Amino acid sequence: MRIYPAILVGGSGTRLWPLSRGDRPKQFLSLVSEQSMLEDTIARVAGRADFAPPIFISGEQHGQLLTRMLAALAIDASAILLEPEGRNTAAAIAMAAHWIADRGEPALMLVMPSDHVIADPDLFLAKVEQAVDAARAGNLVTFGVQPDHPATGYGYIESGDALDGASGVHHVREFVEKPPLAVAERYLADGRHSWNAGIFLFTPEAFLGELARHAPDVAGPIEAAMAAVESQDGLSRPDRGGFLASANISIDCAVMEKTDRAVVVPVDIGWSDVGSWDALWTARSKDADGNAVRGDVSAIDCDGNLILVDGGPPVAALGMTDCVIISTAEGVLVMPRRRSPDMKSLHDAHTRRATVLS
Amino acid sequence: MRIYPAILVGGSGTRLWPLSRGDRPKQFLSLVSEQSMLEDTIARVAGRADFAPPIFISGEQHGQLLTRMLAALAIDASAILLEPEGRNTAAAIAMAAHWIADRGEPALMLVMPSDHVIADPDLFLAKVEQAVDAARAGNLVTFGVQPDHPATGYGYIESGDALDGASGVHHVREFVEKPPLAVAERYLADGRHSWNAGIFLFTPEAFLGELARHAPDVAGPIEAAMAAVESQDGLSRPDRGGFLASANISIDCAVMEKTDRAVVVPVDIGWSDVGSWDALWTARSKDADGNAVRGDVSAIDCDGNLILVDGGPPVAALGMTDCVIISTAEGVLVMPRRRSPDMKSLHDAHTRRATVLS
Repeated sequence: MRIYPAILVGGSGTRLWPLSRGDRPKQFLSLVSEQSMLEDTIARVAGRADFAPPIFISGEQHGQLLTRMLAALAIDASAILLEPEGRNTAAAIAMAAHWIADRGEPALMLVMPSDHVIADPDLFLAKVEQAVDAARAGNLVTFGVQPDHPATGYGYIESGDALDGASGVHHVREFVEKPPLAVAERYLADGRHSWNAGIFLFTPEAFLGELARHAPDVAGPIEAAMAAVESQDGLSRPDRGGFLASANISIDCAVMEKTDRAVVVPVDIGWSDVGSWDALWTARSKDADGNAVRGDVSAIDCDGNLILVDGGPPVAALGMTDCVIISTAEGVLVMPRRRSPDMKSLHDAHTRRATVLS
Repeated sequence: MRIYPAILVGGSGTRLWPLSRGDRPKQFLSLVSEQSMLEDTIARVAGRADFAPPIFISGEQHGQLLTRMLAALAIDASAILLEPEGRNTAAAIAMAAHWIADRGEPALMLVMPSDHVIADPDLFLAKVEQAVDAARAGNLVTFGVQPDHPATGYGYIESGDALDGASGVHHVREFVEKPPLAVAERYLADGRHSWNAGIFLFTPEAFLGELARHAPDVAGPIEAAMAAVESQDGLSRPDRGGFLASANISIDCAVMEKTDRAVVVPVDIGWSDVGSWDALWTARSKDADGNAVRGDVSAIDCDGNLILVDGGPPVAALGMTDCVIISTAEGVLVMPRRRSPDMKSLHDAHTRRATVLS
């Protein structure tokens, strides 16, 4: 029973502006390693007998960028499914599930975002292997990241009893929304809570069955849209009207929080969603002064900074501490690292200003 | 007796890198007002009956830039004298003195650097007027800037007794080198010390006479070089070998500190040499949060910064305090304002690195 990687290539990327932009979301960027996070995601499962070539689910606006990248890297895709407009993860994953189910081949699907870092891919694959039986039995497996700090920016999954006969797999007791700090600290201490990282393993049939039960306003439209899918030059497009009729809802809200088939495999795999400049600084290797630097940078008397030059002018920094300095042709960003959570407001203000000026 | 402005267009400009560079020294930049400081310098004396058109003294490497600028602004020059290589201010001023003396017209010369700000040009001209009689009588007049803080980066002039019959003109008691802070504080308090700003008024004959007496290793070579001056397309070039034979010495060391004809007119004219990013921040107008901003800049939760975009990408700054952020096509500079005095070390490191990389 082969596993189809279903790789989600979405996101708008305002939090890593000006490196990440609408026309160049963060999974296409070389942020942490020399490869893009999308390439890293593909590499985790590439060339393994137990995996089929990946299915990519992407917005129409990134279809060309994606096919060019895959061609340049000589990567086979089972399919590239293009959303005419974003309808969130439930619809995107349902598309991929239908595509696999329509092949008539018994299979599993491994849903993965393409803009996350996994520092220990071997352990990740071992955990996937460990979850295969539970998924084949019709459970919806989620991989929960064991927290190393009381993060308030993620949803949490509380593990319940162990699944009979399955090592390391637990029933999900509860999905919980982003908690306040005091609650996050309790979660960190109790050892039963893990972060919801959006990584899933299940059969297409099990997922589509639970989707039909709990979110018929997604299941019906996507089934219809995929019944009329059209493929050309390696790109598959669902029927536009059908797809847009789907509810705009995440897989968590549509299915995982409601189904009684949710199970969790807690993992400690060096995961990061690189969701902020501070997270990127944490994920990158640093010099003796704690500076994470890429590109043509002169840093004198500097410590704890993230300084990246990517298509912009060279950067010279003197006496800066714990700051973010990003130089691209489109813009230069300068801020203290601790202000990373406020990127959205800055990006909005900058975009508004650029719009007024242009 | 007309006054020839003798405007010195020199300097390498490492302290305001990357805005000011070897091929674009700071007097050519619009730093404080909408005009360049060179234009401001010219404008102080332009179109006045008591002033002749200016003489410009510049390095050979800036001759084309200077003539293009003068042509674009429709500014008449009495002469443009080009140094084949820099030999400091004594030689530069001696060239201009010979040029004027050779006209055979009784005249004064007003020596002015072109990279300084004078916020009150009317008062400056009134002070020049006040000094004319002393200069005609053969004194070497220097205009000393009354200090408003205990600066340690300038030389000081101590005023002695008033000159007989001349209001506001004093004998120079002593020129003193850049003092330590405690001494600078004493100078600020005693009211007798002013900053040496490099602005002078004298007759060419008085200056050349004192130069011959105190610095024959400048006077002889420059006299010979100017006897063989060649003019073409509005540019005058002294004999190269003769000029380079001159000692490399400032007017202060060569003449002013030695002559007994030095007199000083203390002035309070809003002077700044804009010799550092911090000085530029001080000289510029600022918004309610103390930010001095030019170009396409978004500053959110920012205060006390100097943020300039000049040919580089737009800058977005969030939560920055008392910093310098400069965006040009050649480079981006980020540093705390208080580190402005360390610019030279940063520029040297950056240049060294760029050389290694290229």
